[in-house]
Amino acid sequence: MDETSRRSLELHEQLHGKIEVVSRKHVETRDDLSLMYTPGVAEPCRQIQADYQKSWELTRRGNLVAVITDGTAILGLGDIGPAAGMPVMEGKCALFKEFGDVDAFPICVDTHDTDEFVRTVQLISKSFGGINLEDIAAPRCFEIERRLKEVCDIPVFHDDQHGTAIVVAAAMINALKVTGKQMGSVKIVINGAGAAGCAIGTLLSHMGFGNVVMCDVNGIICEGDEGLNAGQEAISHITNANHEHGTLADALRGADAFVGVSRGNLVSREMVASMNRPIVFPMANPVPEIMPDEALAAGAEVVGTGRSDFPNQINNVLVFPGIFKGALKARAKEITEEMEVAAAKAIASLIPEDELDPKNIIPSALDKGVADVVAKAVAEHVAD
Amino acid sequence: MDETSRRSLELHEQLHGKIEVVSRKHVETRDDLSLMYTPGVAEPCRQIQADYQKSWELTRRGNLVAVITDGTAILGLGDIGPAAGMPVMEGKCALFKEFGDVDAFPICVDTHDTDEFVRTVQLISKSFGGINLEDIAAPRCFEIERRLKEVCDIPVFHDDQHGTAIVVAAAMINALKVTGKQMGSVKIVINGAGAAGCAIGTLLSHMGFGNVVMCDVNGIICEGDEGLNAGQEAISHITNANHEHGTLADALRGADAFVGVSRGNLVSREMVASMNRPIVFPMANPVPEIMPDEALAAGAEVVGTGRSDFPNQINNVLVFPGIFKGALKARAKEITEEMEVAAAKAIASLIPEDELDPKNIIPSALDKGVADVVAKAVAEHVAD
Repeated sequence: MDETSRRSLELHEQLHGKIEVVSRKHVETRDDLSLMYTPGVAEPCRQIQADYQKSWELTRRGNLVAVITDGTAILGLGDIGPAAGMPVMEGKCALFKEFGDVDAFPICVDTHDTDEFVRTVQLISKSFGGINLEDIAAPRCFEIERRLKEVCDIPVFHDDQHGTAIVVAAAMINALKVTGKQMGSVKIVINGAGAAGCAIGTLLSHMGFGNVVMCDVNGIICEGDEGLNAGQEAISHITNANHEHGTLADALRGADAFVGVSRGNLVSREMVASMNRPIVFPMANPVPEIMPDEALAAGAEVVGTGRSDFPNQINNVLVFPGIFKGALKARAKEITEEMEVAAAKAIASLIPEDELDPKNIIPSALDKGVADVVAKAVAEHVAD
Repeated sequence: MDETSRRSLELHEQLHGKIEVVSRKHVETRDDLSLMYTPGVAEPCRQIQADYQKSWELTRRGNLVAVITDGTAILGLGDIGPAAGMPVMEGKCALFKEFGDVDAFPICVDTHDTDEFVRTVQLISKSFGGINLEDIAAPRCFEIERRLKEVCDIPVFHDDQHGTAIVVAAAMINALKVTGKQMGSVKIVINGAGAAGCAIGTLLSHMGFGNVVMCDVNGIICEGDEGLNAGQEAISHITNANHEHGTLADALRGADAFVGVSRGNLVSREMVASMNRPIVFPMANPVPEIMPDEALAAGAEVVGTGRSDFPNQINNVLVFPGIFKGALKARAKEITEEMEVAAAKAIASLIPEDELDPKNIIPSALDKGVADVVAKAVAEHVAD
């Protein structure tokens, strides 16, 4: 067990849970009891019964997100089940509160059946103001998110997809500025066509980042390919406009940017050297597709990873607290692509033009000022 | 709107929710992030994957109860739906924390279908250490509780049934002491054969309180009666050993104690006067079956109600924080009748013999020392 694992385990043994449910007002007197509970509590119940919208003011749901998983794709650990996935979910909830002052509560749903998962989440959704799906295996996650968006009247957001896409878009906006490249004419190669990769490809395409090319273990994904899952099939229609075929190495030749959401050590120095003044985001954790020093040695002009021990950490924590805070504030019924784009631009805008630098394209994951800026931008872009 | 309702509504408008989910450790540094979240969090995940029991230590479930309703029997308001029931559920959760230091989280399940409700709760149960069912209409609540106990590996407790039964048993133990009556020879009449009434009847019978007679709107319930629901049918076999028939007034004639979980103003002075040195617990809220001063005028020797503005408030808050605290502490898989009896006796024992008095048979609902005493007694009676 490495040192970080050992210390984390020790911390978990001490804490007995990383989150806690507390009362927002102490109950000391009979008067407290009669206002917090019976008989007084009947009145807010009646008010919500008469006007469902009041549930956002009179209960916690106005600031409350459910962090929900089925335990099938927990970090890099795979399908480890609902109880074993809980430390990650609690960690996520702690970050929601620490970075966004958004209450979040973790729930692991113990089923592999998509219908049952969707129905379970739907049936408990009126207890929350938003639903953050987490660590659900692709391609199941695509159908689950689509169906939940249809049946729930609150925002449903699969962070592994959209949170990742938004923070990558933010980093890419600033990487283009640093390198002087033009959004409309860049070629961006994304390796890994799972939940995160497909969402990144979709968002970058829709935002107008020139030519986006997706790769998976079989190489470049092209419209008409056989054996694509639902998410990959969808993205094949909006990426790779030139209908390229070939390997990842083929895709990278002459490309402007690489985004990796795959596995460590898949990208060689030679591949980076074959690119055009490369922007390289090897985001696999804990081992990136190529180590930053190697990418730089091979000519990369900007490098960002998922890790905190290198410059430019591209981390979802810059996104989810703020995007939910904004959505809740505006009582959004969904998180739209417009809101996602607004979030990406807001994050990018946090590095002033005169501070932009190859080693400073994205705010620190620890910057607690980010969420409010993101929330404001997101709330302003809620559809009426 | 009365003054308490108005002030409660105002408090709810200010609080925006009576509970809050907070992080148990602040996240300020990269080190915090790597221990609370990735990459360190993978280790506690692996530990739980290898040993499911570790979920009680390494996540919050070891101190966490779900307060779950379907919104069908919220206070006296009836079936007002999941969102409108939430202020009561949040209030309950606040009391769990304030009185037992037990974390509790409210979930309203939006279905009237018993199968769906049971399956939904089962599928989320691995996120919790216990399940407190709340304000679910009878007779559905009986089936729901029975089935959930079968499919969940954590305690499932319908507080409206068993919490009420336990606190009534505690009050009855001391009322008998005050009046010098003998447990084995008393006749106790319970009016109201819903969730609470049936549970009170069952527990008092099993504890050995002589002759327990249940009444509902049709009068005395007797073995063999037609039209009984599942809960009433079950209780008909263990109460009314003498096979009495007749009205509530008939049942009360010569009886030693009355327990009301029905509606206000159902019991007359004459009925009380017809009893034998009466113990009278008219617990209907907000208007008792008979007002305490009338009961006393008619000869009652001990009176307890559900209200905080009279002596001897018989309130579940004396039970649920402690019984779950004890069950969680002992990692009980269920809450057995033995544990319930232990809780009742522990609550009764909190009034020292020399302080027992007709106006002092039960601890104050605001006494925050009760839960620890109950928890200790409950934990000692967990089955191996």
